[in-house]
Amino acid sequence: MTEIGIGILGGGYMGKAHAVAMAAVGAVFDTALRPRLEMVCATTPASAERYRRAYGFQRATDDWQLLVNDPKVEAIVIASPQQTHRIVAEAAFALGKPVFCEKPLGASLSDSRAMVAAAEASGCSNMVGFNYIRTPASQYARRLIADGVIGEVTWFRGEHTEDFYADPDTPATWRTKGEANGTMGDLAPHMINGAMALIGPITELIAEVETVHTDRPGGRVTNDDQGQMMCRFANGAMGQMFFSRIATGRKMGYAYEITGTKGAIRFDQEDQNTLWLYLSEGDDATRGFRKILTGPAHPDYLPFCQGPGHGTGYQDQILIEARDFLRAIETQTPVWPTFEDGMAVNQVIAAAMAASKKRSWQTVSTF
Amino acid sequence: MTEIGIGILGGGYMGKAHAVAMAAVGAVFDTALRPRLEMVCATTPASAERYRRAYGFQRATDDWQLLVNDPKVEAIVIASPQQTHRIVAEAAFALGKPVFCEKPLGASLSDSRAMVAAAEASGCSNMVGFNYIRTPASQYARRLIADGVIGEVTWFRGEHTEDFYADPDTPATWRTKGEANGTMGDLAPHMINGAMALIGPITELIAEVETVHTDRPGGRVTNDDQGQMMCRFANGAMGQMFFSRIATGRKMGYAYEITGTKGAIRFDQEDQNTLWLYLSEGDDATRGFRKILTGPAHPDYLPFCQGPGHGTGYQDQILIEARDFLRAIETQTPVWPTFEDGMAVNQVIAAAMAASKKRSWQTVSTF
Amino acid sequence: MTEIGIGILGGGYMGKAHAVAMAAVGAVFDTALRPRLEMVCATTPASAERYRRAYGFQRATDDWQLLVNDPKVEAIVIASPQQTHRIVAEAAFALGKPVFCEKPLGASLSDSRAMVAAAEASGCSNMVGFNYIRTPASQYARRLIADGVIGEVTWFRGEHTEDFYADPDTPATWRTKGEANGTMGDLAPHMINGAMALIGPITELIAEVETVHTDRPGGRVTNDDQGQMMCRFANGAMGQMFFSRIATGRKMGYAYEITGTKGAIRFDQEDQNTLWLYLSEGDDATRGFRKILTGPAHPDYLPFCQGPGHGTGYQDQILIEARDFLRAIETQTPVWPTFEDGMAVNQVIAAAMAASKKRSWQTVSTF
Amino acid sequence: MTEIGIGILGGGYMGKAHAVAMAAVGAVFDTALRPRLEMVCATTPASAERYRRAYGFQRATDDWQLLVNDPKVEAIVIASPQQTHRIVAEAAFALGKPVFCEKPLGASLSDSRAMVAAAEASGCSNMVGFNYIRTPASQYARRLIADGVIGEVTWFRGEHTEDFYADPDTPATWRTKGEANGTMGDLAPHMINGAMALIGPITELIAEVETVHTDRPGGRVTNDDQGQMMCRFANGAMGQMFFSRIATGRKMGYAYEITGTKGAIRFDQEDQNTLWLYLSEGDDATRGFRKILTGPAHPDYLPFCQGPGHGTGYQDQILIEARDFLRAIETQTPVWPTFEDGMAVNQVIAAAMAASKKRSWQTVSTF
Repeated sequence: MTEIGIGILGGGYMGKAHAVAMAAVGAVFDTALRPRLEMVCATTPASAERYRRAYGFQRATDDWQLLVNDPKVEAIVIASPQQTHRIVAEAAFALGKPVFCEKPLGASLSDSRAMVAAAEASGCSNMVGFNYIRTPASQYARRLIADGVIGEVTWFRGEHTEDFYADPDTPATWRTKGEANGTMGDLAPHMINGAMALIGPITELIAEVETVHTDRPGGRVTNDDQGQMMCRFANGAMGQMFFSRIATGRKMGYAYEITGTKGAIRFDQEDQNTLWLYLSEGDDATRGFRKILTGPAHPDYLPFCQGPGHGTGYQDQILIEARDFLRAIETQTPVWPTFEDGMAVNQVIAAAMAASKKRSWQTVSTF
Repeated sequence: MTEIGIGILGGGYMGKAHAVAMAAVGAVFDTALRPRLEMVCATTPASAERYRRAYGFQRATDDWQLLVNDPKVEAIVIASPQQTHRIVAEAAFALGKPVFCEKPLGASLSDSRAMVAAAEASGCSNMVGFNYIRTPASQYARRLIADGVIGEVTWFRGEHTEDFYADPDTPATWRTKGEANGTMGDLAPHMINGAMALIGPITELIAEVETVHTDRPGGRVTNDDQGQMMCRFANGAMGQMFFSRIATGRKMGYAYEITGTKGAIRFDQEDQNTLWLYLSEGDDATRGFRKILTGPAHPDYLPFCQGPGHGTGYQDQILIEARDFLRAIETQTPVWPTFEDGMAVNQVIAAAMAASKKRSWQTVSTF
Repeated sequence: MTEIGIGILGGGYMGKAHAVAMAAVGAVFDTALRPRLEMVCATTPASAERYRRAYGFQRATDDWQLLVNDPKVEAIVIASPQQTHRIVAEAAFALGKPVFCEKPLGASLSDSRAMVAAAEASGCSNMVGFNYIRTPASQYARRLIADGVIGEVTWFRGEHTEDFYADPDTPATWRTKGEANGTMGDLAPHMINGAMALIGPITELIAEVETVHTDRPGGRVTNDDQGQMMCRFANGAMGQMFFSRIATGRKMGYAYEITGTKGAIRFDQEDQNTLWLYLSEGDDATRGFRKILTGPAHPDYLPFCQGPGHGTGYQDQILIEARDFLRAIETQTPVWPTFEDGMAVNQVIAAAMAASKKRSWQTVSTF
Repeated sequence: MTEIGIGILGGGYMGKAHAVAMAAVGAVFDTALRPRLEMVCATTPASAERYRRAYGFQRATDDWQLLVNDPKVEAIVIASPQQTHRIVAEAAFALGKPVFCEKPLGASLSDSRAMVAAAEASGCSNMVGFNYIRTPASQYARRLIADGVIGEVTWFRGEHTEDFYADPDTPATWRTKGEANGTMGDLAPHMINGAMALIGPITELIAEVETVHTDRPGGRVTNDDQGQMMCRFANGAMGQMFFSRIATGRKMGYAYEITGTKGAIRFDQEDQNTLWLYLSEGDDATRGFRKILTGPAHPDYLPFCQGPGHGTGYQDQILIEARDFLRAIETQTPVWPTFEDGMAVNQVIAAAMAASKKRSWQTVSTF
């Protein structure tokens, strides 16, 4: 058991989630590497100190370079705004330090490409934070498909929908400005990553992206509220996706339906402990979608609880990520999703934005 | 209370449904016109006689012209194959007889146009058989949207999915031949009609239509297994639709989700007695999709049962159609959906087939 | 195909349901006997005439004896208040006429006993109207249990809950007076019958029955609002039941859960087209309750629709009853549930009322 | 921020859960007291050392007295078998150390009484581990009822059902021996505690407890498989409960339904992030059970995640307990549920066991 000093950039939503995960991951997974919460970086000394104290870090700073350069900081978690991802990652890799970066990888496709190059040049462990696909249910869905349990996949439908901007009177903030903070930048990456994890690469697509509420109290909205997509996967399956931050009533609508020739799968993150599975086997009269509750028989569930149906939650996904990141560092083996996988998501998004502007089908590989 | 002689073409799936509906509609709805099951027409004298006896018709024939011309047949229900729709309807209108025609209206857009022209020239009552939109739940959904209860509609998702051809080993039959019997011809019309009823006209669309299983025991498949669509409605809302006869696990997947600025609606025909409604009102902590069970407070439920939640079924939708058709005849007032409405569905399908072939957005009004 | 003249007592809720069923049953089930709506009886000449016209009966009367005695009335359906059941049934049997009687059979256990005796003495066909157990889903549940698919039954939970008296300000009416109109008289019989159909005879029980809202606008309430029961079945299974007319939010809460050693079943009449089935077979990871949609593979579904998941409704249950009654008459073979079966339900209720008063376990066979 | 040394007895199922909770609670809740994992005690030196290393404790022992007496162990968590609870708690209280004890409090009612006495004599903080009632959903349910949102409660149904012994071929172990390890000892306490938290004290009850599978591979079963109960609450509400470890298909069936005069609540731990709420308000047509997803608007959710519907899991309940225990110590104020509350649960169970043996209603206060 070896300690490893962790530095986290950002102490808000995701920064806290990663801090908690690093505090608990050892006890949950009996990891070989044990994180030490070494340093947290935030925008002001006061907020950094507040996070330090609250989450139990040793030290705090408002200077990201200081954190990256600190010799006791041996691995970096980037949970700061998207425009900072590239510069931080490049600095860390230059020092030979492993990096876990929140999604989307780069604020743009070119940033992502540069980050992949830096990661590969350094040989350092690198991962991107697509947490939702790490639930026991979604991991199990991946395995079922890979094992051919539902046959050949013929159709996929995915969505990432929430409603935090559904009310047109919700004021404009930094979230309503900048492509990277719009629905395609902020929400779509999760489901695009999920779709590729479940079905494989996306080869062609057509999309529509729009800002429904262009003016909000406090200013003009300069990024998108919703986007829809039709696509083809490399394996020939058709697919549809939808992304929205104005999907009234939807709170965590990371949801998918997958049709195969021998079965079907349905999942909705709002009921993250359930996977619905239909199998075309046995008597017609007994066929139906099964409500499978996750349990010790499913991936990465047992460390959280010995009882099936007892359930894991949002924070547990981040813990699984932390375990994977530590394992990548310890074993010096890439763990999915690497920066390369994160870049592939940016590529699909770039193709979608182009398809929306040009109103025509786009080949993803040309981006 | 006046009797009216009904002639039905076809005694199979839909022919039976309409015969039962005509037998029961008077008792259920206390209609002014009371149907008399006058004559049924089928492909052979033997099958016609079998239907006559089973459903309780006065007479049977295998000659559709004889049925249409019979003076005691005062209204015609067309439940025969799609290629027969036009010729029968035109003959009936020529004699001044009202026609109820199963969906899709014509086997092609030009057939539908001719049928609309004939209907209008005759001044006779005319209706198309889109039964699913007539459940108390879907009628109520229409009303909620029309009344602005969920605000401005920003997104629509619809599907009509079944799995009767999901198994690649299911043999080829007449259903796997001819565009009108494919998924776009047979299943899509229901949901396209539903989408237009709920949201309004579709102005632009792009689609993909494909045959997944091109060879089946017994022969080559010459029509489509599934189709997907993205569209814009006249009111500006975005939409996605999906149609499939190979949607493993789906039995009656006539389902839709509608997002508005003040609420949202979800419906799935597999649970036809439930409408899910979300309203952005009251305390955040108490908000959620409501599982509303249909009851006497909803359209056309009370005649079937005084108790809420007691449920209506498939056959009841056909009864509601019969009531509407009788009412149209009695009052000499068009009742939705008329042939005009049926033709509008063919138009959307024609645009979708073109969009799939040309791989580009199409303007519906140009078809 | 032979006609049979039907006389119905009562034209309200259940009277209408039976009239509609008799109008449609021939066309749906191709029955050997074809009902003719001969005569309806209601409390006043005006209401009787109104029902006659609305439902399409030949004649109307306000004198039940006239209906029973009429030679063209060849079979009787009793859908009048419970205190009338016995006298009407006895008169019909005396004339050798088959009787279908709405539940509960008699207004009291002794009435029911007398009715059974009269039925048996006459040799006439006799049935009781427990409609809910006749859905395709519940018929299929019975078959699964009988076939041992879920193993030995170890536990049963049933309820019949509605909320039409949940609001304490709902006025007193005839429904709030008289034991036979209370929850134990009016709602409990359905689920007690269902429990016995599914699991077998109830041997012992203890119960609590109470009037929660003793005073309502318009007067004092003299019958019960809710009742709960624990019981043992002859096969050794434990059980719990609950009955309520004040179950806020419940509209048609005829629901049960059945645990067996090899599987489990769940059903709720509010989703009457779904049966939930769990089977302890296969890999742990793939086990879950299956949402089975009723379809042609399930009992008595196909005559209503060829498509699975298309759904049957409340009225269809009454149609199935009508088919069974006609079949009993035609074949001169008893069809479940006979008056004997109806009496067994009254016996359980009598034991429950005694258990509640004496606050002790009761042996059902002693009643 | 002050450190506090934690000693945990037991390193298995619950011991691990509490170790993880103590590792993460500070970062999640920004607690004033910060736990230090000081010592873990297990049955052998090897297992204790294994737990120490895995969970990150400073020290390990197989001697519980050593742990209790160690001056750096400032608070004790008892997660060892039930027969050990009393002796450990008494020793800890004698030293003035706060104790958190897993449920059920004592292995018998008299043990529990002694533990309450010792706790009160010492003035030390004391809590019992009823974790399920601590989900945001169940906490919110408590609040809704307390605030009168659903009116007067008229009925309650609760269950704690799992199926880990549903298969008769599952071998006998320590879990199938000893009343405290049976269903009434092991599972029932959770729901009885829940029922009292939600509705209030139980005054009278009748119950049936039984061993369905008396012989298992490996030996005779000497404790109960399932138990059912009917009861009255102090507020007059009727209730039913059911407990089972052989409930085929149920994984975490901690579930309840609560009927009030103005609304109703439904909850199932298998979907722990959802609370179903029905309110008798507004238009009849819009009423239905709302599927409320827990979020920042609900108790104790926000520290885990800022997004609604993102979900909490099993381990998070233990974290909430840890926060409460630390708060009780810090503020020297009793936090529900104290040993007194735990003892009240044992009392109800004692009454239930007597009711089952004597087959008669029992008054809880006489136990």
